[in-house]
Amino acid sequence: LDNSEKVSSLQGFANEIKAMNIYNSVFVDCTASDVVASIYKELLQSNISIVTANKAAASSEYENYAEIKKTAKQKGVKFLFETNVGAGLPIINTLNDLVNSGDKILKIEAVLSGTLNFIFNTISADIPLGRTIKMAKELGYSEPDPRIDLSGVDVARKILILARESGYRIEMDEIVIHRFIPDSFFTGSADDFWKNISKLDNEFEQKRKKVAAENKKWRFVARFENGIAEVGLQEVDAKHPFYDLEGSNNLVMYTTERYNQFPMLIKGYGAGASVTAAGVFADLIRVSNI
Amino acid sequence: LDNSEKVSSLQGFANEIKAMNIYNSVFVDCTASDVVASIYKELLQSNISIVTANKAAASSEYENYAEIKKTAKQKGVKFLFETNVGAGLPIINTLNDLVNSGDKILKIEAVLSGTLNFIFNTISADIPLGRTIKMAKELGYSEPDPRIDLSGVDVARKILILARESGYRIEMDEIVIHRFIPDSFFTGSADDFWKNISKLDNEFEQKRKKVAAENKKWRFVARFENGIAEVGLQEVDAKHPFYDLEGSNNLVMYTTERYNQFPMLIKGYGAGASVTAAGVFADLIRVSNI
Repeated sequence: LDNSEKVSSLQGFANEIKAMNIYNSVFVDCTASDVVASIYKELLQSNISIVTANKAAASSEYENYAEIKKTAKQKGVKFLFETNVGAGLPIINTLNDLVNSGDKILKIEAVLSGTLNFIFNTISADIPLGRTIKMAKELGYSEPDPRIDLSGVDVARKILILARESGYRIEMDEIVIHRFIPDSFFTGSADDFWKNISKLDNEFEQKRKKVAAENKKWRFVARFENGIAEVGLQEVDAKHPFYDLEGSNNLVMYTTERYNQFPMLIKGYGAGASVTAAGVFADLIRVSNI
Repeated sequence: LDNSEKVSSLQGFANEIKAMNIYNSVFVDCTASDVVASIYKELLQSNISIVTANKAAASSEYENYAEIKKTAKQKGVKFLFETNVGAGLPIINTLNDLVNSGDKILKIEAVLSGTLNFIFNTISADIPLGRTIKMAKELGYSEPDPRIDLSGVDVARKILILARESGYRIEMDEIVIHRFIPDSFFTGSADDFWKNISKLDNEFEQKRKKVAAENKKWRFVARFENGIAEVGLQEVDAKHPFYDLEGSNNLVMYTTERYNQFPMLIKGYGAGASVTAAGVFADLIRVSNI
């Protein structure tokens, strides 16, 4: 590649794929880039399927999301993004199967952030809030700037995608986000954040003790019901399905017209390179329909 | 149809489908019949896909199961049987995705009989074994002859199918079945069975009291590990994922190379007309790959 006379560019790459005009071509996006997502529609129009781990398109304005899905359908190609929620867990495909077979999604309750679940499983009298956030970063569970996880925006994107795949027209700014860290921590620089985060340790330890004394645990929960989506911290007791959610696991519960008295439940690792790669690969196989 | 001069027969029906030679034809089998399953190969050879709720083919001799799968692959058509295990739950598709993306199944632990789970959730000091079996029949949970459920044969077929889809060559007579009712109950007539089953009530109540005193519950569990599949009664405590398995729900746990420290878990209704019909319909959509 170094010896090539061509200058690499995203549009140039797209043009080359289109020019090749190969049957059953697939564009695989493992970035988190808005710019890469912006060429999906053009590729789909050229009969190229998209398999993506990138949430940018499915969580963009509804109009754009719907347009991309419509284009794929019209062209008879695929737009697959199973790994957008819960990595390799069968969360979006199962939702699609339910909706396509005529079921109606009544409620979604889910823990969709491995990072936040790790933090709330790790925080203790010995390991205060600031330290657990640092650990999450050091272990590679969080984004380089952990505020992307802590702000709830990543979880909000995921419940947005599930609500849309359930058949609801909903926008990102309609998701109600209940933050558990003051807004001021999200406005300054990353340096400021790391300097100040430990100032919350004492207040959090008081709250944590109270929750622990009631035999409860904190879970950062995403919920969708009656057209309303919200994300925030919830205290769950030992009888709640979220209580035993170990490590950085994810969990989704679908209450539907058919799965009503007891919801359908899917649980497992919701992040990590190997399970995400497996999910992307499974989507790829789905495109070729073998 | 009554006015037709044609005499209806399975082979005649197969011949007509083949003669029509329609693109993307699908044969849907919602029977439990060996005879119907015996024409799958012939249909697949004529490029007709099969979607089936019938376990007969997938749990027949390995040679036949493998031959049917091979035929579908060679002809580029589908042989789908998601509802063979857990009705509409994404149990087989998820297993296929794991295996196709290069994961290795290390262990399967599952509760796969809604009937037996209902029985062990209902049995109590007031409702003895014989009565719970009658209830299961009256509520339509069990087969007309409940011995098909009680014998463990139905669960054995399901774990056989999961083991095969995991990539293992295994036959039905290799599944170890631990029965919780004496063999003599399975040899006589159905009338004999109903006459005699309550004679076991006292013995079961003694055992039940012991299990309850230890804060445990009975679950009829299917397990596959190291190439060995077995089904039988297990006592589980409150910390076990099977403990809170309500009503006639099913639950599957996959421990794989990638989902290792914590298994992937799928739970929900595993039987019933509406969720099974939905699973068949989802398979049908998969054939047309929309």
